[in-house]
Amino acid sequence: MKYAIIGTGAIGGYYGGRLAQAGCDVDFLFHTEYEHVKRNGLRVDSVEGNFVVNPISAYRSTLDMPQADVILVALKSTANSLLPNMLQPILKPTSLVILIQNGLGLEAKLSEALPQTSIAGGMAFICSSRVAPGHINHADYGALNVGFFAHDNYDVLHAVQNDFERAKVQFTIAPDLNEARWRKLVWNIPYNGLTVALNTSTDKLMRQADSRKLVADLMEEVINGAAACGARIEHAFIDKMLSMTDIMTPYSPSMKLDFDNHRPLEIEAIYSNPVAAARKAGYEMRKTEMLEQLLKFISYKDDV
Amino acid sequence: MKYAIIGTGAIGGYYGGRLAQAGCDVDFLFHTEYEHVKRNGLRVDSVEGNFVVNPISAYRSTLDMPQADVILVALKSTANSLLPNMLQPILKPTSLVILIQNGLGLEAKLSEALPQTSIAGGMAFICSSRVAPGHINHADYGALNVGFFAHDNYDVLHAVQNDFERAKVQFTIAPDLNEARWRKLVWNIPYNGLTVALNTSTDKLMRQADSRKLVADLMEEVINGAAACGARIEHAFIDKMLSMTDIMTPYSPSMKLDFDNHRPLEIEAIYSNPVAAARKAGYEMRKTEMLEQLLKFISYKDDV
Repeated sequence: MKYAIIGTGAIGGYYGGRLAQAGCDVDFLFHTEYEHVKRNGLRVDSVEGNFVVNPISAYRSTLDMPQADVILVALKSTANSLLPNMLQPILKPTSLVILIQNGLGLEAKLSEALPQTSIAGGMAFICSSRVAPGHINHADYGALNVGFFAHDNYDVLHAVQNDFERAKVQFTIAPDLNEARWRKLVWNIPYNGLTVALNTSTDKLMRQADSRKLVADLMEEVINGAAACGARIEHAFIDKMLSMTDIMTPYSPSMKLDFDNHRPLEIEAIYSNPVAAARKAGYEMRKTEMLEQLLKFISYKDDV
Repeated sequence: MKYAIIGTGAIGGYYGGRLAQAGCDVDFLFHTEYEHVKRNGLRVDSVEGNFVVNPISAYRSTLDMPQADVILVALKSTANSLLPNMLQPILKPTSLVILIQNGLGLEAKLSEALPQTSIAGGMAFICSSRVAPGHINHADYGALNVGFFAHDNYDVLHAVQNDFERAKVQFTIAPDLNEARWRKLVWNIPYNGLTVALNTSTDKLMRQADSRKLVADLMEEVINGAAACGARIEHAFIDKMLSMTDIMTPYSPSMKLDFDNHRPLEIEAIYSNPVAAARKAGYEMRKTEMLEQLLKFISYKDDV
């Protein structure tokens, strides 16, 4: 089974590296780091053991890549408008595309462009970051949760699960992608946006009474939005997420890292799409929408 | 008729100065600027003519001040917990206290402490700022709108109106203080908080589509909150306020000036009190409450 990694950053590099390390056949797409990894390989410093993928099957464009059975997309979702064209050259009729990205509505959009393709969504629970060209640091966690969006093919997905388990990555299959996506938003919506809008960290948000209440308010909106969209999340999940964050090491969510590094923010996938989906289903996520509005202003300010 | 100005800053200094200039009997309370104004007087540079009040009837404490018929309070509302004690020495049974301050619920709170006192609220439509000790710059506008909260005494208020008109200040009487307070919040709630939370200016908020929409959303919440609290504000008032702000010179609202100068923010009066009043009347001002929560976090961050 041939894997293709589209977007070899902190997430794609880690999972793809693990698969290659376990003996899977993996092709990696690189952008600016191509020359570097061709010479030095892909280095992964991990709490679960360091390794280097060298030599590496690296490519600069999907036009040069072989077709793949399983395509892991780990680009920032801000680049997703390019996906249909990027994927076309490596797609077979039987290929499975897994979007390992944050937010809502990404699979639906891709599926509109590629209506025949088997598409799944992946939620990564991992702390990893790209520390230098071709060099990833994996600090904590690592589980991947995957659920189908279109053209379910559990034979392929179980084979993928097998490979990940051989590669020592915890891999679970989500029976309901919509619910899994919303569940992840319960954490992502408050912490990603508020750390950017207030230029702060998760621990400081938790320490002050009003921001802590705001975090809980936003989580409640996400749960209500999810319910409107047919995804049941138990109310106790809020306290679980708050407690988990209380005991987490102070941490910069991905959007805060993007903001600090002047990269585009994933506002569309994490905010606009859930707000629009809930509205369509009859529920107004007022505070979430306000966070979306603040973030759009902030990213606009950063532009000009 | 004897006037006392409690809080001789940009607003109290301007109105008190105009009254003194017109020959009224005005006592001024100063804090740190006392020595300076005793020596140099109070200087007002105004678009409607410069003047200096010198000599000036200045005091350092209300304990030394004569009793007054009309007391204009122009302190920041963050100091209002001190008001009952400060006012006691200069109050007569017939005194009228006018709170020229921003926000909601300030008259009610003072009236609880001084249940026998005639209390009114004043809304200043003025651009003035304190540029140096004992030196005020009045850049634009200047109208004062005053309405009764408790123990209405229109004989005194009409005499006050007379004095202000002699002093060349436009003075109107608000038939419904509650409505006038809410009406002013339609502008104050979006612009004061958002210029602080987003560290920006009114013109930039108006220029970007999402922040402009957020301003309008907040205005709509204020109008709905007002309605719940028995104050009818026509929906067209939103467009009127937006258009007015479009043509205004770029401007820092009072809360932005307070923030930039590390002074306490009037969060309670402008945000917490309206949100609580609307909630009590059955309406949730969700985005306004979120702005309150953000501002409290920001002012907490500024503290530590």
